[in-house]
Amino acid sequence: MDSYALYYWPNIQGRGEFVRLALEEAGAPYVDVARGKQGIARLLAVLGQEGPGHAPFAPPVLKAGDMWIAQTANILLYLGAHHGLAPRREGGRLWAHQLQLTVADCVGEVHDTHHPVSSALYYEDQKSAAKRAALEFTTKRLPKYFDYFEAVLAEHGRRRPFMLGARLSYVDLSMFQLLEGMRYAFPNAMARQAPRWPGLIDLHERVAARPNIARYLASKRRLPFCEEGIFRHYPELDP
Amino acid sequence: MDSYALYYWPNIQGRGEFVRLALEEAGAPYVDVARGKQGIARLLAVLGQEGPGHAPFAPPVLKAGDMWIAQTANILLYLGAHHGLAPRREGGRLWAHQLQLTVADCVGEVHDTHHPVSSALYYEDQKSAAKRAALEFTTKRLPKYFDYFEAVLAEHGRRRPFMLGARLSYVDLSMFQLLEGMRYAFPNAMARQAPRWPGLIDLHERVAARPNIARYLASKRRLPFCEEGIFRHYPELDP
Repeated sequence: MDSYALYYWPNIQGRGEFVRLALEEAGAPYVDVARGKQGIARLLAVLGQEGPGHAPFAPPVLKAGDMWIAQTANILLYLGAHHGLAPRREGGRLWAHQLQLTVADCVGEVHDTHHPVSSALYYEDQKSAAKRAALEFTTKRLPKYFDYFEAVLAEHGRRRPFMLGARLSYVDLSMFQLLEGMRYAFPNAMARQAPRWPGLIDLHERVAARPNIARYLASKRRLPFCEEGIFRHYPELDP
Repeated sequence: MDSYALYYWPNIQGRGEFVRLALEEAGAPYVDVARGKQGIARLLAVLGQEGPGHAPFAPPVLKAGDMWIAQTANILLYLGAHHGLAPRREGGRLWAHQLQLTVADCVGEVHDTHHPVSSALYYEDQKSAAKRAALEFTTKRLPKYFDYFEAVLAEHGRRRPFMLGARLSYVDLSMFQLLEGMRYAFPNAMARQAPRWPGLIDLHERVAARPNIARYLASKRRLPFCEEGIFRHYPELDP
């Protein structure tokens, strides 16, 4: 199998991390291009590509053979189909994608807690709106999303312990990352509310313990969370 | 062919409109359930459904045979494949979906201009943040998105006049709606900037003139824009 090439910012987990987790679980060979030599220049060249082709609006971008695939959920749709990380039948495939797009909506709202006014402004220039946004998010939207995901997981019962039922999918990997990120960004809000989501917490632990994922998390390939990514820990947003 | 059932808020275009446009262009029979008798109750029953099944997080939801499909872009992925509104080959199918997800990101940012702090608060309670958000969006993000879409369209040249090239896809229908909505919400910002996007303006007119779409737009099925939807005209946000 040819190696995939992933184009994403080299210093953050960001949205690229949802793709990295799928590649790692699948044991698929890939090069994280922007973390290599002249990485940023190569990433910017892909983002600014001109002429016929499928130019992406934003990273992450996955080069798979001749295809350039962008949009995180779209990349996972592709990887799910090619690496057994999603059901083959149409109904199951669409259901997995629907859940992933709901994860993506939640991730977008997490991002907007620290950038409510605009992603084009610094956090420091929208701090008071961010405080209000974070309060609204952690008290209203977070429980709405996580109660929903917990209910989806609980529907199957204990003998079918993944988001889609009996088998792991890319949705489980993304749920791991979402929970991990939320605990980093909002440790206090999560400590208060997480007891409501025992299934998701258990899922998080089981994903972390999978051999390929555990190896990845212990490696240098796994970047730490930081205040340049989606999940940022600003104490003033998590009283 | 069995009729589809669409579940969406009955009084707004909202995200459901991207689905309605695809159904109308395809000439696919569908019932807009929430606009019928006891519509809201039936919509809420679907949103609150319990027990095994594919419960949606939010509308729109399309019932297609035995399947319940939610998330706008996911529904279009399905309709595109079943009604000739997207390429059949994997590369083209993913490219169409990638563009649609980019449209969805733009739509989300439009929504956030009037609800920057939280969708759980009233507009009136986040008006000053909204003014800043709308200014940032119309001066920075809007041109970034629309310049990108214009470049995608222009790549093919005049003889292949759709977003993907020679053939209409659901992406073109969504571009029509995005441009239409932006002109409603931000007439001044659009009047200033639209000359930069002659291809998109031309595409908008050609989509509006398609027989099924023209018939739909002239019918009562097409709801007017209003200040409950995604595209809202607040004069103070469009100086």
